[in-house]
Amino acid sequence: MNETIELLLNHRSIRKFKDQPLNDEQISQLVEAAQMASTSSFVQAYTIIGVKDPEKKKKLAEIAGNQQYVAENGHFFVFCADFHRHQAAGELEGIDVSEAIESTEKLVVGITDASLAAQNCAVAAESMGLGICYIGGLRNDIQATADLLNLPEHVFPVFGMCVGYPDAEPSIKPRLPKAGVYFEDSYPSEEKHFVELENYNDTTAAYYESRTEGKRKDRWTAQVSGMLSSIKRAHMKDFLHRKGFGRK
Amino acid sequence: MNETIELLLNHRSIRKFKDQPLNDEQISQLVEAAQMASTSSFVQAYTIIGVKDPEKKKKLAEIAGNQQYVAENGHFFVFCADFHRHQAAGELEGIDVSEAIESTEKLVVGITDASLAAQNCAVAAESMGLGICYIGGLRNDIQATADLLNLPEHVFPVFGMCVGYPDAEPSIKPRLPKAGVYFEDSYPSEEKHFVELENYNDTTAAYYESRTEGKRKDRWTAQVSGMLSSIKRAHMKDFLHRKGFGRK
Repeated sequence: MNETIELLLNHRSIRKFKDQPLNDEQISQLVEAAQMASTSSFVQAYTIIGVKDPEKKKKLAEIAGNQQYVAENGHFFVFCADFHRHQAAGELEGIDVSEAIESTEKLVVGITDASLAAQNCAVAAESMGLGICYIGGLRNDIQATADLLNLPEHVFPVFGMCVGYPDAEPSIKPRLPKAGVYFEDSYPSEEKHFVELENYNDTTAAYYESRTEGKRKDRWTAQVSGMLSSIKRAHMKDFLHRKGFGRK
Repeated sequence: MNETIELLLNHRSIRKFKDQPLNDEQISQLVEAAQMASTSSFVQAYTIIGVKDPEKKKKLAEIAGNQQYVAENGHFFVFCADFHRHQAAGELEGIDVSEAIESTEKLVVGITDASLAAQNCAVAAESMGLGICYIGGLRNDIQATADLLNLPEHVFPVFGMCVGYPDAEPSIKPRLPKAGVYFEDSYPSEEKHFVELENYNDTTAAYYESRTEGKRKDRWTAQVSGMLSSIKRAHMKDFLHRKGFGRK
């Protein structure tokens, strides 16, 4: 196994960082690594905002549900889907691009492009000995997040990412069984899913049991179905429409 | 600069592969690396289908606009957003999760999770000396792609990925200027975008000129606004609704 794969397999989210900011060269290297990810038809439909202003970081931490590590880290990135730049490109060329960029297809593209760039950034950070944590909680009040960063039409924050020097060493969470995630040539039967979910419930129960001295034995299916028992962030559709995404 | 960052910065899409399939151990390692990417609240809302059946690969190549390398590669992955598994989890627990999983928020989550996993797979493949190319063209006829892979409700193919032993060494495409993609604390002014787009147009014109002995001098703004002058894959919204995504 090579060094890079070892690094990927060793990932765990870090939620406690030392009080040491990243320097500009580190930030620059992370952004360059992010930019080299693939992008759909070379549209590069994303923008990265680095948040340094302590007041803004505090506000984002509140939006994310009072996650302290959103305010306290080495650097905080917000990855945005962005077709505003393409609108500007259209203006330069005298071409109306608004119908295309407001399509649901381009919503898919914007989220994908932002995510591929972000994951390169995450891998680069970890290769430098830093830790990371994705912050989907910025979408709790996505309008407030967008306002705080002055995002115009055709730009929205997909998620944030804390980066910094780790001050904790959490254990690696076991993923779904490979046999429950990877299939060949065709999607599997319903039965196959149930078997793998039961296998995974045993794995997660053992994982939590060993970490909590027997206090918790969470089944994954109970965790996720509890979490999915009601709709969250129900504002998303309207927000995206207002921002010019997924209108068609 | 460490080895992993060097690898990330050296990425280029490969569109011609040697006639040598990946072995099962390689495929397994790629899937494991994919699975270790972060996932929104641990929902792991994706499925990976490896396509080996030559007939299916040929069909997918046609759907993707007759891209031969979709049929001819070392292995072909399809990354799908997947909440079908969560529906099964809900059934096991006697909890109705359908309202949540059909929300636009969960569409964002599914695309993000599939993309983060895919980018880990891409990085792992390149670290093994393999080349990759993302295939958004599967969305040209996304219903046909979904049917070919027997994808049920709450699962859709976000993109494919060719992996294999490179049989070409394309040059690295210059990205947007860092100053046009990364900003601190706030989204930039309109003027800033125009300046960076003009800078980038000079870069891309020089890039194409050097590669085509002066025959092409493509400006990026002309390329993308041409591409965005009309709506593509206009079926996306209806397709996603039919599959149970973004209904609310």
